[in-house]
Amino acid sequence: MLDSFKDDIRAVVVGSTGGIGAALVEQLAASDRVATVHALSRRGASHPSPKVRNLTFDFTDEASVEAAAEALREVGRFDLIIVATGLLQGEGIAPEKTMRNLTLEQMRHSFEINTFGPTITAKHFVPLLDRDSKAVFAALSARVGSISDNRMGGWYSYRASKAALNMMLKCFAIEIGRRFKQQVVIGLHPGTVDTGLSKPFQGNVPDGKLFTPEFSAERLLAVCDQVGAEDTGSLFAWDGQRVEF
Amino acid sequence: MLDSFKDDIRAVVVGSTGGIGAALVEQLAASDRVATVHALSRRGASHPSPKVRNLTFDFTDEASVEAAAEALREVGRFDLIIVATGLLQGEGIAPEKTMRNLTLEQMRHSFEINTFGPTITAKHFVPLLDRDSKAVFAALSARVGSISDNRMGGWYSYRASKAALNMMLKCFAIEIGRRFKQQVVIGLHPGTVDTGLSKPFQGNVPDGKLFTPEFSAERLLAVCDQVGAEDTGSLFAWDGQRVEF
Repeated sequence: MLDSFKDDIRAVVVGSTGGIGAALVEQLAASDRVATVHALSRRGASHPSPKVRNLTFDFTDEASVEAAAEALREVGRFDLIIVATGLLQGEGIAPEKTMRNLTLEQMRHSFEINTFGPTITAKHFVPLLDRDSKAVFAALSARVGSISDNRMGGWYSYRASKAALNMMLKCFAIEIGRRFKQQVVIGLHPGTVDTGLSKPFQGNVPDGKLFTPEFSAERLLAVCDQVGAEDTGSLFAWDGQRVEF
Repeated sequence: MLDSFKDDIRAVVVGSTGGIGAALVEQLAASDRVATVHALSRRGASHPSPKVRNLTFDFTDEASVEAAAEALREVGRFDLIIVATGLLQGEGIAPEKTMRNLTLEQMRHSFEINTFGPTITAKHFVPLLDRDSKAVFAALSARVGSISDNRMGGWYSYRASKAALNMMLKCFAIEIGRRFKQQVVIGLHPGTVDTGLSKPFQGNVPDGKLFTPEFSAERLLAVCDQVGAEDTGSLFAWDGQRVEF
């Protein structure tokens, strides 16, 4: 796993206490290829592996993101940075079944977590990517954030905030692609994963399509391993297939 | 013009004091096909034509949008509603040339104007569309809001807020398309138009591609005239061509 990266991989997982984030930290820590995993979250968490370093930060506050980036900069450059955050429901919001459920409050909150936070994190963390060998910045997006793939409607704020994130990632990819040919920026669709985010919506998931966080994390790391410069700016599903915007 | 609509068209233009919005009001008011034009803006404006009714509202405040919708509901149902707002620069923001220019403040403000305002307007105005003959809800989007068409990068917040708007429009189209087969929701790319929005960026526009607001408004009305149920949820450029997301 992660053979396309140089040895002694330095990784960062943002949102390390979420279902997928925690599974990513776990698998990275368990890999012989990985030297250190910096696990960032709002609340903080401890992890038994000596490879894992915890850092608390709040990506709705740019000063906090800057401070975290400063702390990471002292460590060196990074091969793999994954933003594994996302909010579909909870914190007082629920995905809109109809337009009547739309509120300014819900839109603002969804974009704060799904678009602005990952974007401001990218602003400060993308410059930490390694410049001399393959390096990947990935953020959890979602297939339901694909405008052309939207056939069911609903979930207005979640869908739109992920579409906006996809555009932000594309902008980052283009900007860094001009200078650093081995840096790759991608969005990731993790599938429907058995986490708090999907819990209320698992009824309609076909058999075999509700993944464990471990399975999804393993597949997402395989995607990060598979991608090259020609893939930068794209959105990939857990199975390595490209998702149209 | 507007021959695909029923007679005595009732139209609404939101953002009627902007460059394109004012030109839309002008052309609608001048058309024999149009009975009334409701011109909505924050500041309000007067217009010599007796067909034009002015209404002030602020789409960053849902109560204000609701009150405007209530006033319109008393008039009846509408054949054409166009949201002609948009913010690229001004009000303390400037499109980001590089990721270093990204700030939470700028993102929040751009999305407030380019995504949330038009969306909350759609929530309250889409239900005002006529149900018995062709009716169109259109919002100004932009080709630079196309993720797949993004080759230059930059303009992070503007691009992402328009991509998010495109997704919102797609969601509205799907939801109303289930019940009302003659209602069409589309995004519009007006071209580069000689208005305050584009003023600082006109240097790179090829000869003949900087449009007057009048030309763009005429083309956008022609697009609204051309579209049918099969086009709902799509993004169209001024020349009637579909733009991929």
